[in-house]
Amino acid sequence: MRVLGVDPGLTRCGVGVVEGVAGRPLTMVGVGVVRTPADAELGQRLVAIERGIEAWLDEHRPEFVAVERVFSQHNVRTVMGTAQASAVAMLCAARRGIPVALHTPSEVKAAVTGSGRADKAQVGAMVTRLLRLAEPPKPADAADALALAICHIWRAPAQNRLQQAVAQHALKGPIR
Amino acid sequence: MRVLGVDPGLTRCGVGVVEGVAGRPLTMVGVGVVRTPADAELGQRLVAIERGIEAWLDEHRPEFVAVERVFSQHNVRTVMGTAQASAVAMLCAARRGIPVALHTPSEVKAAVTGSGRADKAQVGAMVTRLLRLAEPPKPADAADALALAICHIWRAPAQNRLQQAVAQHALKGPIR
Repeated sequence: MRVLGVDPGLTRCGVGVVEGVAGRPLTMVGVGVVRTPADAELGQRLVAIERGIEAWLDEHRPEFVAVERVFSQHNVRTVMGTAQASAVAMLCAARRGIPVALHTPSEVKAAVTGSGRADKAQVGAMVTRLLRLAEPPKPADAADALALAICHIWRAPAQNRLQQAVAQHALKGPIR
Repeated sequence: MRVLGVDPGLTRCGVGVVEGVAGRPLTMVGVGVVRTPADAELGQRLVAIERGIEAWLDEHRPEFVAVERVFSQHNVRTVMGTAQASAVAMLCAARRGIPVALHTPSEVKAAVTGSGRADKAQVGAMVTRLLRLAEPPKPADAADALALAICHIWRAPAQNRLQQAVAQHALKGPIR
């Protein structure tokens, strides 16, 4: 099972690909950040994010895409950009019939550290250990993307298979 | 000057095309709503909105796309969907090199009714009058999309003149 995790953002969009199954050691396939310049037009930034995500999908062919669920109670100024970047990531995946899963930040933290209130350093440390890396991935957005992918792999496999069937079925015909 | 106005939303995305210049009677070229089922997966809904917007761009070839600027202080539950739908509309336009303008709801209301606090009925009545329609466009999202396009035509004359000057200059050939 190969999962692309996306920690959405307009300035830095973390991306990480993890392969494996629940109960076995996991492998990091790739990690990085899609960046867009803060002074560019919003539409152009969304186009740049689309290109970046498409390149990751082309190169790594994930079976699932896991995106951080955005909440509007966070920072009012950045949340809209985060929602817009996440929309582009979800669109890219859904267009290819790849199922998209949303996980909340606390679900992700709880999955990799055991605590939904873990800090960034703790998440980075556990991602490093679980993927047997030499050092924590940087920036934090990249580590968070890997944590999202790990969280998704550890979910109920039956639920994942069902979602895959639904996404592929949806691709075959237009929505009513 | 032909403008596609987009009132973004996941369930109902209002779209309206208006043609004209500031100071002359305007013409409605088309109006409608891109709908997606509330029970569909979010990724699939975004794909359906992309298809809908692309179809409007293909058919009407607007020179500008005007999208409602989304604020996060509104309804917390719907604002994320609105931000995501607006991201898809901006992405579709920017990918084609069509300039995207964002206008706030109060800018739009002030442009067509003279008051930034006008209600939906007032906006609908003025859109009907300004475009010389037989009756107010329904649903309100469709009328709002037309109001956005009208707002853009009326707010952008200086920018429009600048672009015309650039185009005419290009016709004459570069000045050394």
